[in-house]
Amino acid sequence: MEATLLKSHKTFEGQTQFWEHDSVSTKTKMKFSTYIPTGLVKGCVIWLSGLTCTDENFITKAGAQKYLAEHQLMVICPDTSPRGLQLPGEHDSYDFGSGASFYVDAKTEGYSEHYNMFSYITNELYELIQNQFQIPKNKVSIMGHSMGGHGALVIGLRESSKFQSISAFAPITNPTLAPWGKKAFTGYLGEDQDIWKQYDATELIRSGARHPNEILIDQGLADEFYLKAQLLPSHFEKSCEVADQKLKMHYRADFDHSYYFIATFIESHIQHHAKFLA
Amino acid sequence: MEATLLKSHKTFEGQTQFWEHDSVSTKTKMKFSTYIPTGLVKGCVIWLSGLTCTDENFITKAGAQKYLAEHQLMVICPDTSPRGLQLPGEHDSYDFGSGASFYVDAKTEGYSEHYNMFSYITNELYELIQNQFQIPKNKVSIMGHSMGGHGALVIGLRESSKFQSISAFAPITNPTLAPWGKKAFTGYLGEDQDIWKQYDATELIRSGARHPNEILIDQGLADEFYLKAQLLPSHFEKSCEVADQKLKMHYRADFDHSYYFIATFIESHIQHHAKFLA
Repeated sequence: MEATLLKSHKTFEGQTQFWEHDSVSTKTKMKFSTYIPTGLVKGCVIWLSGLTCTDENFITKAGAQKYLAEHQLMVICPDTSPRGLQLPGEHDSYDFGSGASFYVDAKTEGYSEHYNMFSYITNELYELIQNQFQIPKNKVSIMGHSMGGHGALVIGLRESSKFQSISAFAPITNPTLAPWGKKAFTGYLGEDQDIWKQYDATELIRSGARHPNEILIDQGLADEFYLKAQLLPSHFEKSCEVADQKLKMHYRADFDHSYYFIATFIESHIQHHAKFLA
Repeated sequence: MEATLLKSHKTFEGQTQFWEHDSVSTKTKMKFSTYIPTGLVKGCVIWLSGLTCTDENFITKAGAQKYLAEHQLMVICPDTSPRGLQLPGEHDSYDFGSGASFYVDAKTEGYSEHYNMFSYITNELYELIQNQFQIPKNKVSIMGHSMGGHGALVIGLRESSKFQSISAFAPITNPTLAPWGKKAFTGYLGEDQDIWKQYDATELIRSGARHPNEILIDQGLADEFYLKAQLLPSHFEKSCEVADQKLKMHYRADFDHSYYFIATFIESHIQHHAKFLA
């Protein structure tokens, strides 16, 4: 389904743009933003945002455009959930429902009709990147922050042939053991813990999922959600070590969970993806 | 009056911070944000934001921190008006009252008690920069965007001994001839056009105001407010030419009025100020 351009802003040597399209996965309109450098585009990185975010946060706050233009890469930033619905409990809390899809294909009543963000990213957006933006299918990578870092790890590991490289900022790496993850998975997936494990990066590595290229993660040590055991990066680190999954994990003193942390290290993440997409 | 730190976020090699203090100029609490590099700080640039903005827009969207850290400069970004008041018409439109001070010392009833942003920036914030942040008084410069570009030009020209250098993005350069300026000046200053001219950068140059150092301005050619004759940079350019005021004016094809434009050229503005503050 071709997306419609809503707004365009010249930014460095390229355009920051906002789009909307009808999604077959979510049966709603979906918004996304892009940055597309002028001239040859060598590849595309999907950015998945965290809880409460929309398609706008990364593109306005991360300062990525300069580096994307330098490396001739585009970025595409989908919204964090379907919008415009009125499902039971959908708008009652910041960590479930709207703005909080956790990038799963939901199984529970009502949600299973619309909250199919795993399919939306992996199939629908992936195809749109090829068809509308003419990016070859072997030139797509994925990254994200917090809930979106979880999404990037899970999608990149489960569909490793579709995504050339994976990176994450402060990802929720073991959601089946974290309060946010337990709440979301109960609400979207029901009680069957075997289904939960298909959306848990640490469990995926334990059960044999691998990505051929090194995964990059940055984690701030003053991150309140790291300190509250929502993110559990050491669990993921340990499982990668045991499984021989290549992983570059940076713990960053004094950095928190904010976009100021992302802005500081986004250049190195874009360099990481450029290595595999160029 | 010492300001209180509300929040702090490590960003590159320094801290993005949010502050609040009791202002004697506005008789309200005032908020501002800062970025302060770690280690030696060579000077401070005041950033004045445009209509509808707060102390948050620049510090979250402009991507300035990296370059401020490199040049060992701090930035301080005050709010765009007093807050928490209920003056007549103060909250009725985006271009007058709250979020729209135009950086004047108001003369009209009610506003004259609180909307003294010229004094707030020029005296109160200027002294706070010295007292609380230990910046020598000959190491302060000023820049801004749109209404804040107007503020930077007017304040920098009228108080040229206090500010080492001036720069602006898409400034309102001749407000006495522009719809925004006429509305604001009528509301804050009354009908006396001689008072208006004290807050009009083009008129100030015409009546003899000068800055010893070259002024830097960037203007996007796809800027809707430029196209609607709100900004009138050619008037300022002409008056500087006639008066031999040094001015570097860049017209930028395809750029609009947004923070994407600011983010693209902020590095060159910080380099400009660093030249005079280092």
